[in-house]
Amino acid sequence: MPNTTLTQESKVVPVGSSPSAGAGYRAWVARAPKQPMTVENINPGPLGPEEVEVAVEYCGLCHSDLSVLNNDWGITQYPAVLGHEAIGRITALGSSAKGLSIGQRVGVGWASDSCMHCFQCMSGSHNLCPEVRFTIVGHRGAFASHVRSHWAWAFPLPEELNHADAGPLLCGGATVFAPLAMYGKPAQRVGVVGIGGLGHLAVKFAAALGSEVTALTSSERKFEEARGFGAKRVVATSDSAGIQKMAGQLDLLISTVNVALDWEAIIGLLAPNGRLHVVGAVPAAIPVSVFSLMMKQRSISSSPSASPAVIRTMLDFAARHNIAPQTEHFPMSRIHDALARLQAGKAHYRIVLDADF
Amino acid sequence: MPNTTLTQESKVVPVGSSPSAGAGYRAWVARAPKQPMTVENINPGPLGPEEVEVAVEYCGLCHSDLSVLNNDWGITQYPAVLGHEAIGRITALGSSAKGLSIGQRVGVGWASDSCMHCFQCMSGSHNLCPEVRFTIVGHRGAFASHVRSHWAWAFPLPEELNHADAGPLLCGGATVFAPLAMYGKPAQRVGVVGIGGLGHLAVKFAAALGSEVTALTSSERKFEEARGFGAKRVVATSDSAGIQKMAGQLDLLISTVNVALDWEAIIGLLAPNGRLHVVGAVPAAIPVSVFSLMMKQRSISSSPSASPAVIRTMLDFAARHNIAPQTEHFPMSRIHDALARLQAGKAHYRIVLDADF
Repeated sequence: MPNTTLTQESKVVPVGSSPSAGAGYRAWVARAPKQPMTVENINPGPLGPEEVEVAVEYCGLCHSDLSVLNNDWGITQYPAVLGHEAIGRITALGSSAKGLSIGQRVGVGWASDSCMHCFQCMSGSHNLCPEVRFTIVGHRGAFASHVRSHWAWAFPLPEELNHADAGPLLCGGATVFAPLAMYGKPAQRVGVVGIGGLGHLAVKFAAALGSEVTALTSSERKFEEARGFGAKRVVATSDSAGIQKMAGQLDLLISTVNVALDWEAIIGLLAPNGRLHVVGAVPAAIPVSVFSLMMKQRSISSSPSASPAVIRTMLDFAARHNIAPQTEHFPMSRIHDALARLQAGKAHYRIVLDADF
Repeated sequence: MPNTTLTQESKVVPVGSSPSAGAGYRAWVARAPKQPMTVENINPGPLGPEEVEVAVEYCGLCHSDLSVLNNDWGITQYPAVLGHEAIGRITALGSSAKGLSIGQRVGVGWASDSCMHCFQCMSGSHNLCPEVRFTIVGHRGAFASHVRSHWAWAFPLPEELNHADAGPLLCGGATVFAPLAMYGKPAQRVGVVGIGGLGHLAVKFAAALGSEVTALTSSERKFEEARGFGAKRVVATSDSAGIQKMAGQLDLLISTVNVALDWEAIIGLLAPNGRLHVVGAVPAAIPVSVFSLMMKQRSISSSPSASPAVIRTMLDFAARHNIAPQTEHFPMSRIHDALARLQAGKAHYRIVLDADF
């Protein structure tokens, strides 16, 4: 069952019910680390000429919402409105917004603005723009009635996607699709470390791309589900002997966890010319043995979410291959229950909050 | 003076003077770590069908000769004959040797055999063959009257190259040319850390490839020479402010040193999508911050010398662009003086031993 999803009836906020640009928004606001959020009325100010306003229907809950809520990375700007896997309909368009129309259903992910004129933006790597804006840092995210985005960062949703579950594609899905798109090769063997919100999508994408997928998880209860997502092999991260047996086999290994691993063993899984691509925000430095890289010409890399072009490709690919996040839905009013579930490692596999302001 | 070399009259061992295959060789033999080597007579045994015998004229002295002499990497097999940047003429060919002829001048480098049938060999990456043989580990190297090699690892020397100085191209040159060949892009900015035996060739190759080259060296006395090799900018590795000023500018940074650096600052030099490629045998693990890689989509990698195809390309490129190692010559009988000079960091820039058995 590679594409099983736990959906519930979709709950669309009718376009007409949203306030017009400039009127008040409602949002879950965090005012300090590790404190409960409260719903506040927000005056968003005038819509910028290149901005779009989206009435939020759904928003995925990503581990980085928790990290920013708690200022784990030291970059949080309070008051903060979290939420960066938004699905909704466009309710207002700035005068210079391009390629979008009122009422269109779009997604907004980890980034929601970039300068549009630097070398990175002009070469299609807007996510590497030095001025890229994270949706939930210094900008109001989507645990709210509305979210705003630069037009380039609001992505029309293919009709075929179940929009109620599509939110997690915008950050989690994009983040793991990016290394597959950038570094993937035909007939490759892909490993995925961590079968959670990101990892389960990585397995689905890699399998749909024709790769032989090996899943590595600390949770034996996920073995069967990982196979359902498309993994051919599943190995426990604690199974040193099993990992040893697979040494030198993987062409691309995507690590989605944010904890320290036995990195020497993990790097040892890579085939000649293999690459370890780390998308989990591991706080401690990874100790890299030069000899381990050298003898098999291996690489280690990382990337921040994905460029607009990659996100569009990902959405199109997900639609064509019927790839959807496996979700659990909570009404947004139960945001603290959802956060507690995420924090306890019980999210199965991605929580989506249904806007109910 | 990008191609200045300190040469002396070439001293060719006439082909006819070498013993025929199976007759005795003379070699500098190391019997224990950190002990002086002695010249011994060696019975090489019959030449294998795919082997070639080369009468050594010149052999570069590489830091890894010293590492293997002293068993720094724990892989040395005594008695050991060092020397793996050999230039000489073919004096015997195995019955199945391909593409070479008696009397032809060839070079032999870090590797001198591979299985020829595994996936890596069959895809042109013979240097990644699991059975690749290092010329000086479990095999007699080229501080000797003769060295043997699989035919695939004996490289005909382009006529245009000064063969007396070409030896260091076979290991040092190949090792730094490989990342330029594998990862290089047009109009890129290349950095080279360590302006020594490998680094000075990296600067020359990168400059000849049209890259803007920045040299980083711990030795201020090398500033002017680094510019002479083709570096546009030279910065002291101790100059934290100067390094800080260059943050985010380099597309490819080749590190040739085998000591720990301020890795966070070094990685900070990389532009978006930049790559740090480490070819120096740094013994301690490099601590890699995931955030530093992630935010600019950087990579770290390493590689073992080069494949035969890359070595051929490198030799051809060196010949066309008149790129030669800057060498100091010692007669091979003064091997211990040469080793002492290398160990003291005084080699300027690569020592070549002239066979004088």
